[in-house]
Amino acid sequence: MSNSAAEDPIERAAADSGHATIHVTLLPSGRTVESTPGRSCAEMLAAAGLPLSTDCGGIGTCGKCLVRFSGEAPEASPAGRRFLSAQAIQDGWRLACQHPVQDGMQIEIPSETEQLESKATFEFDVARLSLDPEIAAVTADLAPPTRDDPLAGMDALLTALGEHLPISLAAMRGLSDRPRGAVRRVQVIKGNGRVLDVRSGEGVVLGAAIDVGTTTLAVYLYDLMTGRRVGSSAGYNPQRAFGADVISRIGRVRKRGDEGLAELHETLIEGLNERLQAACEAADADPRSIYRAVVVGNPTMMHLMIGVSPVGIDHVPYVSAFLRSVQFQASEEGLCMHPSGDVLLLPGISSYVGSDIVAGLLATSLGQSGEPELLVDIGTNGEIALAMDHRLVSCSTAAGPAFEGAAIRQGMTAVTGAIEDVSIQDGSVTASVIGGGDARGLCGTGLIGAIDECQIAGCIDSTGQMVDDPCDLADRIEGEGRDRALVLTDGDAPVRLYQEDVRQFQLGKAAIRAGIDTLLDHSGVRACEVARLYVAGAFGTHLRPQRALRTGLLPTIAEGRIRAVGNTAAQGAIFVLLDRRMQTEAEELAQRAEYVELSSDAGFSKRYLDHLSFPSA
Amino acid sequence: MSNSAAEDPIERAAADSGHATIHVTLLPSGRTVESTPGRSCAEMLAAAGLPLSTDCGGIGTCGKCLVRFSGEAPEASPAGRRFLSAQAIQDGWRLACQHPVQDGMQIEIPSETEQLESKATFEFDVARLSLDPEIAAVTADLAPPTRDDPLAGMDALLTALGEHLPISLAAMRGLSDRPRGAVRRVQVIKGNGRVLDVRSGEGVVLGAAIDVGTTTLAVYLYDLMTGRRVGSSAGYNPQRAFGADVISRIGRVRKRGDEGLAELHETLIEGLNERLQAACEAADADPRSIYRAVVVGNPTMMHLMIGVSPVGIDHVPYVSAFLRSVQFQASEEGLCMHPSGDVLLLPGISSYVGSDIVAGLLATSLGQSGEPELLVDIGTNGEIALAMDHRLVSCSTAAGPAFEGAAIRQGMTAVTGAIEDVSIQDGSVTASVIGGGDARGLCGTGLIGAIDECQIAGCIDSTGQMVDDPCDLADRIEGEGRDRALVLTDGDAPVRLYQEDVRQFQLGKAAIRAGIDTLLDHSGVRACEVARLYVAGAFGTHLRPQRALRTGLLPTIAEGRIRAVGNTAAQGAIFVLLDRRMQTEAEELAQRAEYVELSSDAGFSKRYLDHLSFPSA
Repeated sequence: MSNSAAEDPIERAAADSGHATIHVTLLPSGRTVESTPGRSCAEMLAAAGLPLSTDCGGIGTCGKCLVRFSGEAPEASPAGRRFLSAQAIQDGWRLACQHPVQDGMQIEIPSETEQLESKATFEFDVARLSLDPEIAAVTADLAPPTRDDPLAGMDALLTALGEHLPISLAAMRGLSDRPRGAVRRVQVIKGNGRVLDVRSGEGVVLGAAIDVGTTTLAVYLYDLMTGRRVGSSAGYNPQRAFGADVISRIGRVRKRGDEGLAELHETLIEGLNERLQAACEAADADPRSIYRAVVVGNPTMMHLMIGVSPVGIDHVPYVSAFLRSVQFQASEEGLCMHPSGDVLLLPGISSYVGSDIVAGLLATSLGQSGEPELLVDIGTNGEIALAMDHRLVSCSTAAGPAFEGAAIRQGMTAVTGAIEDVSIQDGSVTASVIGGGDARGLCGTGLIGAIDECQIAGCIDSTGQMVDDPCDLADRIEGEGRDRALVLTDGDAPVRLYQEDVRQFQLGKAAIRAGIDTLLDHSGVRACEVARLYVAGAFGTHLRPQRALRTGLLPTIAEGRIRAVGNTAAQGAIFVLLDRRMQTEAEELAQRAEYVELSSDAGFSKRYLDHLSFPSA
Repeated sequence: MSNSAAEDPIERAAADSGHATIHVTLLPSGRTVESTPGRSCAEMLAAAGLPLSTDCGGIGTCGKCLVRFSGEAPEASPAGRRFLSAQAIQDGWRLACQHPVQDGMQIEIPSETEQLESKATFEFDVARLSLDPEIAAVTADLAPPTRDDPLAGMDALLTALGEHLPISLAAMRGLSDRPRGAVRRVQVIKGNGRVLDVRSGEGVVLGAAIDVGTTTLAVYLYDLMTGRRVGSSAGYNPQRAFGADVISRIGRVRKRGDEGLAELHETLIEGLNERLQAACEAADADPRSIYRAVVVGNPTMMHLMIGVSPVGIDHVPYVSAFLRSVQFQASEEGLCMHPSGDVLLLPGISSYVGSDIVAGLLATSLGQSGEPELLVDIGTNGEIALAMDHRLVSCSTAAGPAFEGAAIRQGMTAVTGAIEDVSIQDGSVTASVIGGGDARGLCGTGLIGAIDECQIAGCIDSTGQMVDDPCDLADRIEGEGRDRALVLTDGDAPVRLYQEDVRQFQLGKAAIRAGIDTLLDHSGVRACEVARLYVAGAFGTHLRPQRALRTGLLPTIAEGRIRAVGNTAAQGAIFVLLDRRMQTEAEELAQRAEYVELSSDAGFSKRYLDHLSFPSA
């Protein structure tokens, strides 16, 4: 072996490992793939039919082949250090082209399509909706050109439509080559006062509701003529590699300037295009059939989606470049849909209460009953809205990613292998695992379940400290300091609840609870007067209200008034997609809603500190 | 030398030629460059700082490195035959990567920037114009965000403007990062009821008038705030490599389908972008300062510019996909200007009378005097418009490219080295050469000059036959059949007028003259009643009216009524660029103008045959 080969970690690994077949587990799916030694992780993935999109062909100069090592990660390569933050490296992110495959590796692939979509447990008030989308398809008979009147295609179309509309360039392309002496029947797609497309024959007309989350991206595809959902796709936001929350992503833009902005912008567009393509595959549809997208997300995500710097958002006085709705053509951002299709970003309320919350207000009809109602949307940020009388007030708190299963040691999203609940009885621990197989980690509801049960069992005290005395689970508590943990599952790869995880949870739940209490106080409403409390977000979907009440995440409200409503952001976007009057309603809600800035609220900090502890039993 | 090397024509040439420096002349500039043997023409051009844009890196698989050999061309390579039509090969087009440089070569480079722009000899009625462009720049003071009101950038802008306008994505990018507590002053560019851009500081606001000719492309750059021209650039239309006239380009789209359409579309956009860049360099301006483009051209060029198939145009009943004006954002076609800038294609009259003629009507104010007036625009097609009373009638004839110096043996555009006129007296021939140096070829006015003088001298008879008896130029006439020619200049590389060239001229002038006569007849106007006859096009600029009358190109009209007006198409586009009311006027002209289809006019064919001959002296 030459010296130069010995210096290449991949060749060295190949030489070391002989030629046995090795096995790698891909996360979050849990799928196992075989590989031969001597390959880089990027090559292994390509061979497994999961090529990562790269620009440099695997030489470590483009920084695009990001994967995350679960468990022990190899030492970051110099190339990796150029592209990844210290935090990302600590979190296990690496460049796949820089590291050799090894037997037993567990690699998380940000782009792998996953069923992250939550099943709504709540019936939205769809009776309010009419199927009246902004996009309409009409049939038009184009008069034939004759020798005496060689009518241009555009004129034949406008005559057939009986109105003079601007015609997109793509539609113009459908107006060539009309047969002589015969009527040509075409399907005309109209929207926003323009002709978007002219097609031969009749085709499906689709719309996409897009939820741009800090952590996950979701696309819901609808047939706009029937109102039926035809496909969907959810997956991680690939921007995760640049930071777990909006603050770290804004920081990256500030630090790297236009280049950082372009990087985050392009990464997001690529991520959305993967979701759009996957949803189209699920629906067996051509992306060119998507003529409208309604997009919701927090303001930072909306800025990054259209390449506008969000650097005003992360410091006082928290300024957005825009909050109103924004409309543009799909081709302007290269979205994977019809190039002349309309893209609508719904309006937000403030720099930290975005269109995702406006969509949630729409989906839950918050306050339309006339009674006080609360919406608590728990994601990486926790946004809260309170409706009473004719007022709507809102605020936002930094919940942190713990509720989404991130930033905890063995955290994961609520997919196959995640512990979604825990029960502790008579000194023994039972974990409910999604999919029923071996537990691989802990998702948000699993985290709150474990903590709640530990509190009841007495092995976590009201300050959040893990105590092994008096405690009948003492034999399951091990380690000290950072590594102190309760072993939740047995076997070769036990899943543990770390002391640190409990701290993360405390920080998050205190922020949300203090936000709720501040809004209530601000509005002169008592918790017991709240008629309905909607818990939104993937975390909310499987949440057991008792746990939220016992751990102090939610204020004392009758359990029956708490409703888990799943992804209300996406649901509101779907409402607007299917019924254009809902766009007007969203604009009005965004205009009407007031915003309470918690960082300048004297009561908030005190409440936050109070709620770091658990309620005394 | 190995066999494989010997089979490579470039290596073989290198081996054959030793290592002497060789010289190559680049056309149309006449610039001489040095090279070493063994290089391909493509490599030689790259070394000379004139790299051709290619996709394959010089291996003959992309077909983009087109050049045209002047004089004897090397045998076309197999790669060349794949990309080039038989006609193109006969015309001397080759792939530059496939042929070795040789001493004394003359190579025409389609992309080389050339001063093809003609100097207008006519004063357009600019008094009609107000400087009132569609684009306006205003200064706006954005209120600062405060802790109490962290006003979004977009809201600060709309408040400052005092009106609610849609804001382009590019403009939104200028609304980030406002300073706290201080007013931010920005320049806002508005147009067509939208905010196109928001910039810090004050910058120049430019507009481009673009003339898309079948043979040449021209861009005229204006400062829209002062109305001054700041730069311009003209050059060949690189689509020339795919056929000399619109018919051959439409044929290519029909034959190669979507691929052919994409090829012609992209080639044109690339060609326009080169012109836009060159004009910006001349103006020392950033292409992002161009916020509006007004485009004119024949309908086939307008179709190809926006990627719409023109296949209905070349056969009865000659159907366009569109004739009305079309407006879009620069980013939709990737034009080298501000991405949110507006692009306006002016309307045309029929499939063969395009916006170039509508712009010509605008520039010459045709018919506004109330007297009968004619506009004859001589390019690859000859378009004719006649105004009388309140009518406007138009037609189009296939003039062929002879008037532009193409399709004749030693033809060239009216640039340095072109014979622009000829005088024959007492058996001796004097040629006026543009730039005063050695004659390299014959441009359109040189052709008509030579033919007119030969007629007077008696060496071309009224049928167009070159006769050497009786003729005092008999000693200058040589060759027979296809090669029969009159030697115009002496020296090593004489320029000749071939019998074939005379035939080309006869075909072209008969078509134009028959068109004029048909329009006059159709409208009941006699030639002597025409108050003004405008001859437009580069050819017209240097035309001596007598020659046009004596050769029968124009009908018998008092010489003083004939006015050479240069590029009226570009001039009309400039009018619309500077004064937005002119757009309305152009729309009205296009609506009002009638079109006479010559191919179905019984009198046209007869007149065409009659006018193939020269008027008897």
